[in-house]
Amino acid sequence: MKKLINAPEAVLADSLVGVAAAHPELSVDHVNRIIYRGTPTPAGKVALISGGGSGHEPLHGGFVGTGMLDAACAGEIFTSPTPDQIQEATKVADSGAGVLHIVKNYTGDVMNFEMAAEFAEAETGVKVASVVVNDDVAVEDSTWTAGRRGVGLTVLLEKIVGAAAEEGRDLDSLAALAGRINESGRSMGMALTSCTVPAAGKPTFDLPDDMMEIGVGIHGEPGRHRVPLAPAASIAQQLVEPVLADLDFTGGPVIAMLNGMGGSPLIELYLMYGEVAKLLEKAGVTVARNLVGNYITSLDMAGCSITLLRADDETLKLWDAPVNTSGLRWGV
Amino acid sequence: MKKLINAPEAVLADSLVGVAAAHPELSVDHVNRIIYRGTPTPAGKVALISGGGSGHEPLHGGFVGTGMLDAACAGEIFTSPTPDQIQEATKVADSGAGVLHIVKNYTGDVMNFEMAAEFAEAETGVKVASVVVNDDVAVEDSTWTAGRRGVGLTVLLEKIVGAAAEEGRDLDSLAALAGRINESGRSMGMALTSCTVPAAGKPTFDLPDDMMEIGVGIHGEPGRHRVPLAPAASIAQQLVEPVLADLDFTGGPVIAMLNGMGGSPLIELYLMYGEVAKLLEKAGVTVARNLVGNYITSLDMAGCSITLLRADDETLKLWDAPVNTSGLRWGV
Repeated sequence: MKKLINAPEAVLADSLVGVAAAHPELSVDHVNRIIYRGTPTPAGKVALISGGGSGHEPLHGGFVGTGMLDAACAGEIFTSPTPDQIQEATKVADSGAGVLHIVKNYTGDVMNFEMAAEFAEAETGVKVASVVVNDDVAVEDSTWTAGRRGVGLTVLLEKIVGAAAEEGRDLDSLAALAGRINESGRSMGMALTSCTVPAAGKPTFDLPDDMMEIGVGIHGEPGRHRVPLAPAASIAQQLVEPVLADLDFTGGPVIAMLNGMGGSPLIELYLMYGEVAKLLEKAGVTVARNLVGNYITSLDMAGCSITLLRADDETLKLWDAPVNTSGLRWGV
Repeated sequence: MKKLINAPEAVLADSLVGVAAAHPELSVDHVNRIIYRGTPTPAGKVALISGGGSGHEPLHGGFVGTGMLDAACAGEIFTSPTPDQIQEATKVADSGAGVLHIVKNYTGDVMNFEMAAEFAEAETGVKVASVVVNDDVAVEDSTWTAGRRGVGLTVLLEKIVGAAAEEGRDLDSLAALAGRINESGRSMGMALTSCTVPAAGKPTFDLPDDMMEIGVGIHGEPGRHRVPLAPAASIAQQLVEPVLADLDFTGGPVIAMLNGMGGSPLIELYLMYGEVAKLLEKAGVTVARNLVGNYITSLDMAGCSITLLRADDETLKLWDAPVNTSGLRWGV
């Protein structure tokens, strides 16, 4: 295992030291492994909190900042944050207007966010609402989840609902918006190689040199099928078709993300986006906004995913609103 | 070789299709493989042009936009752009105020930018000045270069001189500023793994599982020495020490970049930045600004580099000025 680390068990703690050093505008709670904005949530603003296992950076810590999250709870690599962590973040980030939990659909995450919400409500009376993101069309159930996995759409949802929260909308309307976004987006991913979890010290799965995994999850969970390596145009087709088959993306603007899994260079991600864009145009899908890059990764896995989100004027306005995080920044 | 490509010989062309699809705000000349801003250089503004072999993305195409480059010439992977390409970009981007070529110190790049400058001056009378970036402290001469290689400092220089060009400064003063930046910065890189050039189909070099390459170049050129794999704290020391030994970075603010080589996940880059920041503090170096992420890469190589730049009030002001590119964006 070749990694830029000190010791497998210290990766998360050591990386948070780096985040704190690089981003004086953030506030890092090293004990509870929570990344907050540098200034407390303003009175009247609903706090947005997300989190999950580490290893998907910039998600979620890289999306803390104006226009996006108020706090991110970092679990160990590919491990849910604990209820205690989430409860602490919920209490600290709440300014009295309530807290929206943005949870990717993995069994441990859902359970721990639920427990944290109950504890926080019981202990301090903070109002908590939740959205569970489950946009992965690849498989209905997998190693880590009951129902569809939460993947790339989480990034888009955090941006859009984050902008709405910045406008001062209340908790119920933000939860409703988050639910609508979740229903309007779909993703599908693929891997050329496995990732290697530091604590495991070896690749999560074996993938022969001439094969790729279509429909892979962000922890290296098996996908729909293992198929022979193919040109980018074919890979794009194998990602786009199931997404379009699952939801109608014609008839309105779409936000598209071509996301890298962490180990694929940017030149390949742009190449893939070119192939995806051709297929979408052919299918009558109008891409109004796009993102190309590493936004929700799987450690050093080579591969990519696509996410499509049906948008409307409101969504696009919220998408375009200023965001100031290390992972996404514009308008500021 | 596992890559998201159609064919080795089509990687650059296909990737530029994706860049054009993703960035309607840019203008891509697919024949000459030049990325321009979407609007012509305003009268009176010096045009900044860079370029080089592809495979280092986001450098250089990802740095075209307000506050940074006016055009980037993309060579084939790890291959200099041709004089024709550079001449074309020089002619198109010039608004009459002249053109500054930002050239990384590789023999082919330097030669081709020089020829292009001569041709452009002779043919259309455009004034061209050049800066050759040579910040790599690892080796004096290497496979690709006479003298020190140009690496990470190029990113910082393009940002700072780009901001100065936006202010309307003239060609001579921009060239002088670029020269001062080049003299004030140093870099050092390392690799855990080789990269794989698509046309070669196999790793550029062999690196045993228990070894790493200290002082590696951005094309996988050999470095200072091959040493046993070590913890991040030791790797940081092996990068920071030669940089600090080469130039005094105390006594004023410094801009620091911890750059990923392309295949290392962000969680490791932040971890490395944490280690670097500790060493710099111990050495009395004051980091005023920093960047952590993939800015000048080496395809899928796992590894990182550090760049330090001695700054002053003027440099910091130019650093903080708005920049609107896909690779660096703030203030807009």
